[in-house]
Amino acid sequence: MAGDRPQEAGPEQASPDQRIGEFELIKRYLAPLASDPGSLGLTDDAAVYAPHDGHELVLTKDMLAADVHFFADDPPEAIAAKALRVNLSDLSAKGAVPTAYLLGLGLPDDWREDWLERFCCGLSGDQSAFNVVLLGGDTIRTGEGLQISVTAIGETPVGTAVRRSGAAPGDLLYVTGTIGDAAAGLKARLDPGFAHRMGLSESDHRHILDRYLLPQPKVKLGGAVRASASAAMDISDGLLADAAHLARASDVDLLLELADVPLSSALTAISKADQPTFQACLNGGDDYEILACVPEDRASTFEADSRKAGCPVTRIGKVTPGSGHLQLQGADGPLPIDQFPGFQHF
Amino acid sequence: MAGDRPQEAGPEQASPDQRIGEFELIKRYLAPLASDPGSLGLTDDAAVYAPHDGHELVLTKDMLAADVHFFADDPPEAIAAKALRVNLSDLSAKGAVPTAYLLGLGLPDDWREDWLERFCCGLSGDQSAFNVVLLGGDTIRTGEGLQISVTAIGETPVGTAVRRSGAAPGDLLYVTGTIGDAAAGLKARLDPGFAHRMGLSESDHRHILDRYLLPQPKVKLGGAVRASASAAMDISDGLLADAAHLARASDVDLLLELADVPLSSALTAISKADQPTFQACLNGGDDYEILACVPEDRASTFEADSRKAGCPVTRIGKVTPGSGHLQLQGADGPLPIDQFPGFQHF
Repeated sequence: MAGDRPQEAGPEQASPDQRIGEFELIKRYLAPLASDPGSLGLTDDAAVYAPHDGHELVLTKDMLAADVHFFADDPPEAIAAKALRVNLSDLSAKGAVPTAYLLGLGLPDDWREDWLERFCCGLSGDQSAFNVVLLGGDTIRTGEGLQISVTAIGETPVGTAVRRSGAAPGDLLYVTGTIGDAAAGLKARLDPGFAHRMGLSESDHRHILDRYLLPQPKVKLGGAVRASASAAMDISDGLLADAAHLARASDVDLLLELADVPLSSALTAISKADQPTFQACLNGGDDYEILACVPEDRASTFEADSRKAGCPVTRIGKVTPGSGHLQLQGADGPLPIDQFPGFQHF
Repeated sequence: MAGDRPQEAGPEQASPDQRIGEFELIKRYLAPLASDPGSLGLTDDAAVYAPHDGHELVLTKDMLAADVHFFADDPPEAIAAKALRVNLSDLSAKGAVPTAYLLGLGLPDDWREDWLERFCCGLSGDQSAFNVVLLGGDTIRTGEGLQISVTAIGETPVGTAVRRSGAAPGDLLYVTGTIGDAAAGLKARLDPGFAHRMGLSESDHRHILDRYLLPQPKVKLGGAVRASASAAMDISDGLLADAAHLARASDVDLLLELADVPLSSALTAISKADQPTFQACLNGGDDYEILACVPEDRASTFEADSRKAGCPVTRIGKVTPGSGHLQLQGADGPLPIDQFPGFQHF
């Protein structure tokens, strides 16, 4: 679409500063990313997509805004990758194999062609890394800051997508990776003294910054999730907030052993330096790890599958009968969850 | 997704001004729109969708930004409807039956609950009118103005989606509705003296304002397009610009008879008052009418089907052998297209 603009001016028109128009932009930078025949070379109004025989689609859509979900001056490659990866993370948690995506790109008034070229490089790299293709989308001028909207498509054999709602008492609770790093990385971005105050090594400091900048979605775990998990989701709002969401959706209680939550050396350092900051990071979100409930008789298979996939999991608790609550077990007994920093997320 | 926000604050958190959080917003206003079981009640990370047997998906994604694609102070119901309708228009032009959509809603900092309620009313009305359901999406705070991103899903029997690229010499060129009204409506919105200067009656004035505010996608024509059209697209960039796109995609020439382009009484009045303004409106875009090429032996069927569907079509030209150019035929012979106001759209 185009043409509909109160100011009667838009990215589609020849710019007085000689920047390329929307068509040239699509042709030069986006069309090379659209290798699927269903994308119709991005020259049509829509894309055509048929799932593989016996499969259905899993669809997710996440929006990101400059200076809300990323810093406007982040490397364009990283912004592109983050926009795609947060969506792939959702698909993996449902046990789906990502296949394609549509991109909505809202450019600020001062967009530059070299920025766009690097943004598309980031997409291209991730398309190779995650085996997905650009299927279609839209490019507009926002009139304000950069806005990105990705709709990602995955597939699962019909009826096998994993919900948040399937957990049953007796299931074990697992998580991938380490928790809290991205939230610590955001604090470090906002506060130049953070790393020093927390006593972080240079490599710990780099680690948390990287984890904020560039999520590592556990796409390779999708098969194991589908094969073994009774319920799963990715952690974006924060470990405790999301565990509570899963408990509610499944109408069970989750008992989470705080001491078992896997930590990077950076988070371990923060936990020694400043407990409230550590606890805020633990539930700070942006982890894009997978939280999964697995029936006990599938646990060893799930653990083995996850190791094989290169996404090892850690058991951090279990599912108990209940009515949708999260219970926290600390070193010295139960912790009152409503006093946990950052838990009142909504 | 949530949690990823440089300022460590977002729409998901309890607002100091007591506005509802993201979860309550979804539950109260958006979940009632998500009646399809595949939407998982909007409580999961993703939606599940399986096309009907023998069908494939047609996917389109249009973004709209406040004060670029609509006025921020337009009625919220109309903003919602426009965001959905511009996407449905794309699907109809491909011969697809719209079924569902995902909504990305980027709210400005000063969003109000009563605004959101009216926005969702607009969606609800259009869901009934066009028989589509909300399947999933995302709600964020943009940090700036309102941004809307809709991914719409339609279905066609496998292999029957109509492209821009199928036109062949000898085909006839048709258009639905009347052309130029929305562009005139935008001029009237921006210039309080416009209607008077153009000698528009009050009802003509209302008509063009309505056409800008609320597109009327020709969803009911989808079946006729699929049954008869060799190529089709919706008109969003402007009749001449889009006809040129279709000519290029099909690698044919299009001969368009300007005198045959269907006009409302408002546009007829403008053509008498001010030819340059009239010509700018004619190619101003935002029409969301369908431009279709139809083989001559299907023409009477297409015309009859379109009448039955309540979307009558007008023949405005024909397809000739060529290499992707649009030729304009005026009352006094060929018109040089590059002198047509607004044609240099890209």
